[in-house]
Amino acid sequence: MASKRVDLDLLRSGSSLAIARAISLVENDDPVAQSLLADLFPHTGRAYRVGITGPPGAGKSTLTNRLAQHYRTLGLEVGIIAVDPTSPFTGGALLGDRVRMTDVELDHRVFIRSMASRGSLGGLSRKTAEAADVLDAAGKDVIFLETVGVGQSELDIAGTADTTVVVLVPESGDSIQAMKAGLMEIADLFVLNKADRAGADQAVMALEMILHFRGEGHRAPEVLKTIASEGVGISDAAAKIREHQTNLESTGALVERRRKRLDDRIRDLVADHLLHEFWSTSRLAILREGVEDALNGRSTPYAIASRLLNDHPEKQAGTQELP
Amino acid sequence: MASKRVDLDLLRSGSSLAIARAISLVENDDPVAQSLLADLFPHTGRAYRVGITGPPGAGKSTLTNRLAQHYRTLGLEVGIIAVDPTSPFTGGALLGDRVRMTDVELDHRVFIRSMASRGSLGGLSRKTAEAADVLDAAGKDVIFLETVGVGQSELDIAGTADTTVVVLVPESGDSIQAMKAGLMEIADLFVLNKADRAGADQAVMALEMILHFRGEGHRAPEVLKTIASEGVGISDAAAKIREHQTNLESTGALVERRRKRLDDRIRDLVADHLLHEFWSTSRLAILREGVEDALNGRSTPYAIASRLLNDHPEKQAGTQELP
Repeated sequence: MASKRVDLDLLRSGSSLAIARAISLVENDDPVAQSLLADLFPHTGRAYRVGITGPPGAGKSTLTNRLAQHYRTLGLEVGIIAVDPTSPFTGGALLGDRVRMTDVELDHRVFIRSMASRGSLGGLSRKTAEAADVLDAAGKDVIFLETVGVGQSELDIAGTADTTVVVLVPESGDSIQAMKAGLMEIADLFVLNKADRAGADQAVMALEMILHFRGEGHRAPEVLKTIASEGVGISDAAAKIREHQTNLESTGALVERRRKRLDDRIRDLVADHLLHEFWSTSRLAILREGVEDALNGRSTPYAIASRLLNDHPEKQAGTQELP
Repeated sequence: MASKRVDLDLLRSGSSLAIARAISLVENDDPVAQSLLADLFPHTGRAYRVGITGPPGAGKSTLTNRLAQHYRTLGLEVGIIAVDPTSPFTGGALLGDRVRMTDVELDHRVFIRSMASRGSLGGLSRKTAEAADVLDAAGKDVIFLETVGVGQSELDIAGTADTTVVVLVPESGDSIQAMKAGLMEIADLFVLNKADRAGADQAVMALEMILHFRGEGHRAPEVLKTIASEGVGISDAAAKIREHQTNLESTGALVERRRKRLDDRIRDLVADHLLHEFWSTSRLAILREGVEDALNGRSTPYAIASRLLNDHPEKQAGTQELP
């Protein structure tokens, strides 16, 4: 069954207009988005998803663009979803413009979409995965999920990829910061970018030493150097991503990652629906009243939550029903 | 009604042992934590909560400790909750040790607790607020919530404070990064720390210019300079925090913030409970089976979520009931 506003065949043929429209529906939580996503889901699963993350200023966009160019020369179809932390002042335009300046180097067949991280990040993680599904169904072979790896939620987005690349720069302490920020946990491959800067070799050594201490049972991610702005190390990076993919496929880990992703997705859908159904007008009224009581010391959040949970509409004949 | 494992009277008298035990119960999601929190809730609302956040290396711990010392000299009771991004290698000990080194300067009446941000951050935000409730009920006058402001979830924690202080350093681009990371949105006061470094005055000017462009309708947060390691600017910072508190109180904004916090808390409690109840053994079995079907292209996450949501146990006589 075709969706109301996006032609599924057009989308599957790779139409940029159809892709853009579909992602907009997803981004705006449009009511038709869910049925569209259900329709296109059977056509997903072919694309390989590469997460690119790291601290601000590490050169993630440049590396992503260079890798995209590389895959294009191999004849592959490429999509990029860049998650921008939105500035409350500019609505994200500041970073958006910077990304766009380098994007002109890419041919028009690379589909690029920026998604703002302002607002609900839990929702963003789901929306990013859904946007990747759109690109997957549209025939992209490689999809980049590019995020600033500064918080758990942003890391989660990159972590939904098949291979996650963490980009760092030689500046001292960067690897320690990465360790603290949880980047080590999600990295399948480390790229030390801007490797022509002072301290690059020491940074690689420090990183490898830290990774070595991770102990047994873990396959330590490799560390490689790039100068993305000059295209240095790009084919090496692509080769390492390919190597990781082969490894995931041969060990069954790729299926395991996708299983986990589906599990998370279904749980999210269920949670969204349950909460949406729960917060009826009458319960919101109880909540508002309860908040005032708690503010004035007449009740507690626990008593109010308990009252809300025990106030089953289906027990009161003819008020409203659960789904 | 007294809780099983923490004596409420002992806690209210300010016993560090009772506080530590209560926070451990909260942190470990112990079954008795909820009833303990319900018991102590009526004794909260007196403490003033100050969020301290900013990028790694900005000197948040030092500033927090100095402010704590300052309040101690005024005879106030102080508690500190420091949210550490946990390293997967060291279990957070690395950052933990660094914090502890400076903590020896504080007298033993300042209660300090580190909470690790590893794992569920949504849960961490709730737990941090609950730990603050414990300190509040224990008679602390000022409670610091110190987090690395690198992700939305960490910002949320600081944002649950009455006054949120964003700590930056003079290094170029820091204010731009802060803007990107959403720190501007939650800041009530900016502290430019390490103000003896080159570029401090320019950084303050840049920050003030950016804040100025925020446009009308917003009361721009003030920017002040400190050298926390030398105690410079600490009493000014405390005065500005006090000024912000007075402003919040006189405009009714403080009550509004606390109302919002209670609303969030109740919604969280409800969501936790609903999901806990929903995911019965039988539904988890349907989920597991559904994930395999989706993996093999025989179903979609949307169809599985829909099946789970429509499979009401109460419609099947004698299986199990909702709360």
